[in-house]
Amino acid sequence: MAKPNAIVAQSGGPTTVINSSICGVIQEANRSNKIGKVMAAHNGILGVLKEDLFDASAEKPAVIEALKRTPSAAMGSCRYKLKSIDQAKADFDRVLDVFKAHDIRYFFYAGGNDSMDTADKVNKLAAQRGYELVCIGIPKTIDNDLAYTDHCPGFGSVAKFVATCTMEAGRDTDALYTHDTCTIMEVMGRNAGWIAAATGLAARNEDEAPHLIYMPESAFTWEKVIADVKEVYSRLKKVFIIVGEGLKDKKGKYVTADTGVFAKDSFGHVQLGGVADMLKVVIEKEVNIKARTQKLGTNQRASMHFASLTDVEEAYMCGKEALRAAMNGINGKMITLVREESTRYICSTGLADLKDVANGEKKVPKEYINAQGNHITESCRKYIIPLIKGEAPVTIGQDGLPVYVRLAMKHVEKKLADYL
Amino acid sequence: MAKPNAIVAQSGGPTTVINSSICGVIQEANRSNKIGKVMAAHNGILGVLKEDLFDASAEKPAVIEALKRTPSAAMGSCRYKLKSIDQAKADFDRVLDVFKAHDIRYFFYAGGNDSMDTADKVNKLAAQRGYELVCIGIPKTIDNDLAYTDHCPGFGSVAKFVATCTMEAGRDTDALYTHDTCTIMEVMGRNAGWIAAATGLAARNEDEAPHLIYMPESAFTWEKVIADVKEVYSRLKKVFIIVGEGLKDKKGKYVTADTGVFAKDSFGHVQLGGVADMLKVVIEKEVNIKARTQKLGTNQRASMHFASLTDVEEAYMCGKEALRAAMNGINGKMITLVREESTRYICSTGLADLKDVANGEKKVPKEYINAQGNHITESCRKYIIPLIKGEAPVTIGQDGLPVYVRLAMKHVEKKLADYL
Repeated sequence: MAKPNAIVAQSGGPTTVINSSICGVIQEANRSNKIGKVMAAHNGILGVLKEDLFDASAEKPAVIEALKRTPSAAMGSCRYKLKSIDQAKADFDRVLDVFKAHDIRYFFYAGGNDSMDTADKVNKLAAQRGYELVCIGIPKTIDNDLAYTDHCPGFGSVAKFVATCTMEAGRDTDALYTHDTCTIMEVMGRNAGWIAAATGLAARNEDEAPHLIYMPESAFTWEKVIADVKEVYSRLKKVFIIVGEGLKDKKGKYVTADTGVFAKDSFGHVQLGGVADMLKVVIEKEVNIKARTQKLGTNQRASMHFASLTDVEEAYMCGKEALRAAMNGINGKMITLVREESTRYICSTGLADLKDVANGEKKVPKEYINAQGNHITESCRKYIIPLIKGEAPVTIGQDGLPVYVRLAMKHVEKKLADYL
Repeated sequence: MAKPNAIVAQSGGPTTVINSSICGVIQEANRSNKIGKVMAAHNGILGVLKEDLFDASAEKPAVIEALKRTPSAAMGSCRYKLKSIDQAKADFDRVLDVFKAHDIRYFFYAGGNDSMDTADKVNKLAAQRGYELVCIGIPKTIDNDLAYTDHCPGFGSVAKFVATCTMEAGRDTDALYTHDTCTIMEVMGRNAGWIAAATGLAARNEDEAPHLIYMPESAFTWEKVIADVKEVYSRLKKVFIIVGEGLKDKKGKYVTADTGVFAKDSFGHVQLGGVADMLKVVIEKEVNIKARTQKLGTNQRASMHFASLTDVEEAYMCGKEALRAAMNGINGKMITLVREESTRYICSTGLADLKDVANGEKKVPKEYINAQGNHITESCRKYIIPLIKGEAPVTIGQDGLPVYVRLAMKHVEKKLADYL
């Protein structure tokens, strides 16, 4: 009898290290004798719905290994969200139809809480229908906002990159403060301020950038920002500010200057951007100092050229442990990262229910934010520092640039009628 | 008799490697027996005017050496421009007064064409007044737009960083094109498109980012941009665009969405920013695809964490050769970089008149831009690739982040009345 197949997919915003998790799944599957083929869904759950699958087992081992040093989601990702089972019955039926058609009995889904929600719902529907299926989630989000895990693969690398960029851009402001007095850097983080918090590591003393950090967790008022900026400017003659993209005013409304046409994404989230530009206008007017803005954008979540080795290795571990958990009869769980109680940093893995993770959200706790609500505390530094440690040098090509791989994506023949 | 002193200063926008040039000046001066102290002007020519000087010879040798791996301008910089000698007689008189008061007979000025103009004028005034002074310029600009030199220290590192960031953000668009279809990255470069051109290296084939590069050298029309975007989108279902901040329309007007209060800088240049945001609005409306923008800002010129070793070493060579030229009786010249005719890349130094450099500007030549005016050619790749080569790893501290030095800045006692 043929061994059952597995499917692996990535979803949501890519990260620097999500491919390392996928590498862990595939390499561990190749070591197992219970799995037939590992198939990959092209562009996450969209690829499942469209039966757009490729044979990950057919990829060259060297290419799979090189995924550990290739940023973004090599199998493609999506932001397509399956609704509740009742509302989107057709979608869920289709997922199971595709799984059945290709004898897929293991589903590994790397993503954030939306993805864990999808995995949980697919799992429950399979159980209802009596289709034998094992669903395991792999944590992935630069936002570091998943509950039930100490931290998330992807966060360590974005933290290292944004802190380094803050340090470097801060040196620029140090040099040219007589002209470019205020620099405002906008970082990602829709509801949680973890990425903004990470930039705080760059300030090895209180004179160094960033001088002010505004996170979604702290109440935001223009009066407070203006007073803060004036205080720093009077002390240092320069001001370096970090703002999280998800800054909200007292009424819970996003502070944004975005004028885009596509104001909401497909989950109904408000599409963010432009909060730094908003601050620039207000600071120039109210404090009368010249301000410049910058936004690292998707480079925050793709900076493999300066990734955290800890992050790369932990992402791999999560992928590998997802496969092992499935082989050990675990189902409906996400792999978590567990920080051991120790004088030195030791991290192992644990398990959490997909449903719990889907409904949870971990914001930056109060004890990590200073009393003024505009910087981080020492305990926050202690939490983040181990996660950014270690260098993970990339291979450099003849043209002086990093060498990243692409999958061959040998397509699996379709067995069903078109859908979507 | 006491040996005459030298002064060294940095000006204009900082770069990743300008401190390496300063290191070259100071280390070579320490090897010379003709120079007393090397003084540094805090914040460029502003520091000279304010008699805000410090003793670079008193810095620890290890700190001076570490300047080779410290980004931005460690002695401070400025954008203060001395006007013509007639218009700003007081300023020029003051410069010579400060030089006389501290027995400064050598002036080393690292900067772009505005700085070479300043050095040239100071030099000529000294000659008029019979004050013995040697002025040597050290090329520095990320914009790579200085004439009479094959390329400029600072460009290689920004080129490597923006090309790598384009490659990495391009991978993000590859993964998530079903949601974030179009990415627009804005890069520096006011009048010359060299930095935008460098991102072209990331496209190892025509399917890879960037798909479209808009440089100030090419005529810009909205019709062309919309047609280009539609063509790429129909072929690839995604579009990655690079725009130089200095994009102008057919009438020579800057294309910018900047709403800042400080619309012009102190040289009368239009303060740029926002061209990517402008493109976003137009593309979303006219092509009906979602677009996101990003702007690396000053991180482009401070990215020591991924600098070009070639650039670091050539910057050092320019500083060292500036000192040597002065010792050899050269005056009124800027050090240039000369690319030897050879099958492999060999770079030596030459000399150009300060006045010529001050009045020149080197744009991206036609043969480096493709026929459609929206990407680079193979000859452009061949020109840039050698400049980005080689890794220059930074020291990493206990907190996982780069270790950059700061100068002690032991102040030189003032001898004159206050000015400015």
